[in-house]
Amino acid sequence: MKSTFFLCVMLALSVFNANAQENERYPLGDYTELTDTKPHDDAATWDKLPVPTQLSWGSTDIRYPKLSIPEVRKTTLWRTKAWKGERVNAQAVFWTKVDVEDAEISVSDLKCRSGVIPASAISTHFVRYVMTDELSKDRSTGCGVRENKAEWDSSIVADVLDIVKIRDIKARTTRPIWARVQVPKETKAGKYKGTLTVCGKGIEPMTLRMEVEVLDRTLPEPKEWPFHLDLWQNPYAVARYYQTPLWSEAHFDAMRPIMKMLADAGQKSITASIMHKPWNGQTEDHFDSMIGKTKRLDGSWAYDYTVFDKWVEFMMNEVGIDQQISCYTMIPWKLSFDYYDQATHRVLFVNAEPGERTYTDYWETFLKDFSRHLREKGWFEKTVISMDERSMESMREAIKVIKRADPEFKISLAGNYHPEIQADLYYLSIPYGNLFPADVKAERERNGQISTVYTCCAEPFPNTFTFSAPAEAAWTVLHAVAGGYDGYLRWAVNSWTADPLRDSRFRTWAAGDTYSIYPGPRSSIRFERLVEGLQDCEKIRILRSELKGGKLERLNKAVAEFTPEGLADTGKSASEMVSDLHELLNRL
Amino acid sequence: MKSTFFLCVMLALSVFNANAQENERYPLGDYTELTDTKPHDDAATWDKLPVPTQLSWGSTDIRYPKLSIPEVRKTTLWRTKAWKGERVNAQAVFWTKVDVEDAEISVSDLKCRSGVIPASAISTHFVRYVMTDELSKDRSTGCGVRENKAEWDSSIVADVLDIVKIRDIKARTTRPIWARVQVPKETKAGKYKGTLTVCGKGIEPMTLRMEVEVLDRTLPEPKEWPFHLDLWQNPYAVARYYQTPLWSEAHFDAMRPIMKMLADAGQKSITASIMHKPWNGQTEDHFDSMIGKTKRLDGSWAYDYTVFDKWVEFMMNEVGIDQQISCYTMIPWKLSFDYYDQATHRVLFVNAEPGERTYTDYWETFLKDFSRHLREKGWFEKTVISMDERSMESMREAIKVIKRADPEFKISLAGNYHPEIQADLYYLSIPYGNLFPADVKAERERNGQISTVYTCCAEPFPNTFTFSAPAEAAWTVLHAVAGGYDGYLRWAVNSWTADPLRDSRFRTWAAGDTYSIYPGPRSSIRFERLVEGLQDCEKIRILRSELKGGKLERLNKAVAEFTPEGLADTGKSASEMVSDLHELLNRL
Repeated sequence: MKSTFFLCVMLALSVFNANAQENERYPLGDYTELTDTKPHDDAATWDKLPVPTQLSWGSTDIRYPKLSIPEVRKTTLWRTKAWKGERVNAQAVFWTKVDVEDAEISVSDLKCRSGVIPASAISTHFVRYVMTDELSKDRSTGCGVRENKAEWDSSIVADVLDIVKIRDIKARTTRPIWARVQVPKETKAGKYKGTLTVCGKGIEPMTLRMEVEVLDRTLPEPKEWPFHLDLWQNPYAVARYYQTPLWSEAHFDAMRPIMKMLADAGQKSITASIMHKPWNGQTEDHFDSMIGKTKRLDGSWAYDYTVFDKWVEFMMNEVGIDQQISCYTMIPWKLSFDYYDQATHRVLFVNAEPGERTYTDYWETFLKDFSRHLREKGWFEKTVISMDERSMESMREAIKVIKRADPEFKISLAGNYHPEIQADLYYLSIPYGNLFPADVKAERERNGQISTVYTCCAEPFPNTFTFSAPAEAAWTVLHAVAGGYDGYLRWAVNSWTADPLRDSRFRTWAAGDTYSIYPGPRSSIRFERLVEGLQDCEKIRILRSELKGGKLERLNKAVAEFTPEGLADTGKSASEMVSDLHELLNRL
Repeated sequence: MKSTFFLCVMLALSVFNANAQENERYPLGDYTELTDTKPHDDAATWDKLPVPTQLSWGSTDIRYPKLSIPEVRKTTLWRTKAWKGERVNAQAVFWTKVDVEDAEISVSDLKCRSGVIPASAISTHFVRYVMTDELSKDRSTGCGVRENKAEWDSSIVADVLDIVKIRDIKARTTRPIWARVQVPKETKAGKYKGTLTVCGKGIEPMTLRMEVEVLDRTLPEPKEWPFHLDLWQNPYAVARYYQTPLWSEAHFDAMRPIMKMLADAGQKSITASIMHKPWNGQTEDHFDSMIGKTKRLDGSWAYDYTVFDKWVEFMMNEVGIDQQISCYTMIPWKLSFDYYDQATHRVLFVNAEPGERTYTDYWETFLKDFSRHLREKGWFEKTVISMDERSMESMREAIKVIKRADPEFKISLAGNYHPEIQADLYYLSIPYGNLFPADVKAERERNGQISTVYTCCAEPFPNTFTFSAPAEAAWTVLHAVAGGYDGYLRWAVNSWTADPLRDSRFRTWAAGDTYSIYPGPRSSIRFERLVEGLQDCEKIRILRSELKGGKLERLNKAVAEFTPEGLADTGKSASEMVSDLHELLNRL
């Protein structure tokens, strides 16, 4: 036993050797969580526990506090249903009044009469705690500047699903454990049973039972899901955090598993920046332009697509996200457009409004060349030129310029619904709470246009702040289906804060707004619950096409509840709604 | 008469039509001088003048105040001597107690028995007034920050030699007139006589006599003068002031006559910037890099010499300044080196000290390619890689990098005399008041190395601030000869202030420090007196090679006075010394 442990430790150390320093700036391996200053169970309360070290199944709806004894109805059996190809999550809770060294989670194969879900299909994670804050003081929004962290009520919350497999657990702490079972597609229907065990130095191994009932339905590959998922990627954050030269092999190596997580969630769009700071540098790591624009001495332009091509090819060929290339942006908030000036060998900026001659010159010349390049690459049909919400006049002028450069260019907007221009928008994502008129939505579908919904900092609910209820992530995408949208957009999935593993707070917006995938990469409770919701969206689609009569009605009624009104009517919590629908989908 | 005047006016207007607005931002044609707030003769004093409008020859040593009656011994005859090929200056003074409209200067041919110096060889200029300030409060230096103009005693002084040929002269003002005779090389010796006439609406034409005695000696073309003149050019100031795209045809058109003025003064060096802000942007218009350095995604470098080549070819082929290309700088004050980064499409900076690996990588890679390019162009032998004064260790490290890139690279420094590295410096300019040890100077001469002297803001005397005595410009270069230097360096000849025609004050240094050529281009009293000094330097060289015995001794004695000690010993003013030497050179 001892030698096995030694081997495990050595293995873990070798993987994270370069990052073994606990308090280094950008840990990838182990790290120390920030201190929680909130009131919690005192030592006396902990010391009263009759059993020093305990383990139980908990709920994936709950973020268990770190320094208090978890409120959990002790149970050793987790039971769930799953479609073939689905991934299902469970959360256990481990708590101890004594120090436990070298705690480690192991799982057995899940076995049915004749079949097996191998242990390798199950991933387990210690859940780690990250600093979060709160909504605005009136609880109406997560938006707004919050430069002075001291003004915001902060606490640590369970969110990060760690990749460090062996850890010391301090006395008088709770350490949740996440278990994810990826049911292989070829699994036969049946009840699969196995165990999850936590062991550690000086404690008896503690075992929980797992039971996954695989149904005789198959969830297609995420790539096949028609749900249009558009979580914006930030390659610049990865280069900074991983300390790799931008667009180097090491950078792509760092991005590969992160972007794979997105592909496995059914991500459709590649986020590409075609200008410097398309969102005015609002994230910790601003976006540079992926395309070089050089103004030569003679006034002519030269464009360099090296970076753009590398990024798109990586996402398409190595990651498998290949349906849309979203190019940001023709009309950013700050109308200032970069180019490299051969005369000065500086980067200069064209400051111009859509409609102005210099705006047109800058963009039309570029877009013509870009169209040529995209067509050469075979990417033209997948590319959308994106705009941000600005005045109708500006948007119309921008559309004019795009159409003049190439009338077949696809255009996108994440902004309010505008009847005047919606027909020009191949891709239109409107804010939560807004609806497409039914006839317009139908017309857009006929035209092959994509109509989605987005949430951002504005929504106190549903959201994926690090303090949001975990189920809200699922609720949000189920809402997209309920509202008849084609998919869901979120403006940031890995726009990391300065110290994302330890502190999810940012200078603007409620904590966690800017990312749900952590460095490592590490998934999060939020991201896993989002994927759960996305799976259920696909199940709804499949069941709707199969079911009839009463069953279909029951399904549609349950789905229809995933609206602000439905939520109010049911009197249920988001967690309950999500759970109930999930169960229904496995029952129908 | 009236129709002639009308024609003249129309001509003037058509030339400067685009710049007719008197108070536009960047006038090239006429403009309004700033107001002088200094005490001056009052209206009563002016009104007492018996003759309303007067004209007399004055002295080129004097900046006549604008608002007072000039202190001038009235004379109508200007007499001077000149070598063939020399240009000689005279200053007349016009003053009036009444408004004079459309004043205009004309000159006749200067005639000798059989010969003529045509009127076209004579240029005349109304002298214009520019705002100046003063030395430091203890009068010890012109250096130092002077952001708050109000703290500095300011006044307007006569300096600019205008190119606007017809102007209204207000009642109770003085308007000096500058006349410059460029004696054609082929002129026969003899006394040439002619007139200078000022006419204006409602006044009788007033005439002064001019007499130039052409001696039987010939001044070689400025290009032939061995005196190494190095006045640093600023192309960026020209682009800004003339509002022309940098390095466009219009920009070169604007620069051509300015740079020709330098060529005609015997300028030897082309000022080239090989990095962004070689002097940390200390002038109103900072220098960009004339060479593009791009770091490609794969870490390799690409260099773009388009601008550098254009500038050097222009100076060499169109202007005729072709002996040295001074490349600034390997060790600037701010050790921050620009490059265009293909990964981010931004200009990034390498911040590194000489000796550090990143410094070496940046410079050695570039210099190797630069050497290749310069050799291809046939410019390698003319190019010097310049350093600024920094620690001995830094300079040594920089020299190492240069020599490793190409052992034959020439290196220059404008800074203190350093015995440790002087042998490595092809071109070394040391500050006024410092001397090369005689043996070192001789050794440097034998090696073909150039050893010059420079002045900058540090010298209260001699200098070419707009408030300096005009003769100091000549004194300075005569001092270079007296001190046994090969030439003279000044760090700025057209680094214009924000409003150079009206206000020579700058945020640092005493007014006028940054330029002596004005937009238009317009020469200045300072620049003309500098050229006068340079001509006398050449005369000294010629006479020294010709004269013997007592005459040579007299010459050498007179020249030797042009040192700080000599000046003190003679008890003469700089103006007197310059005049006396000038006369002597025409007598020997």
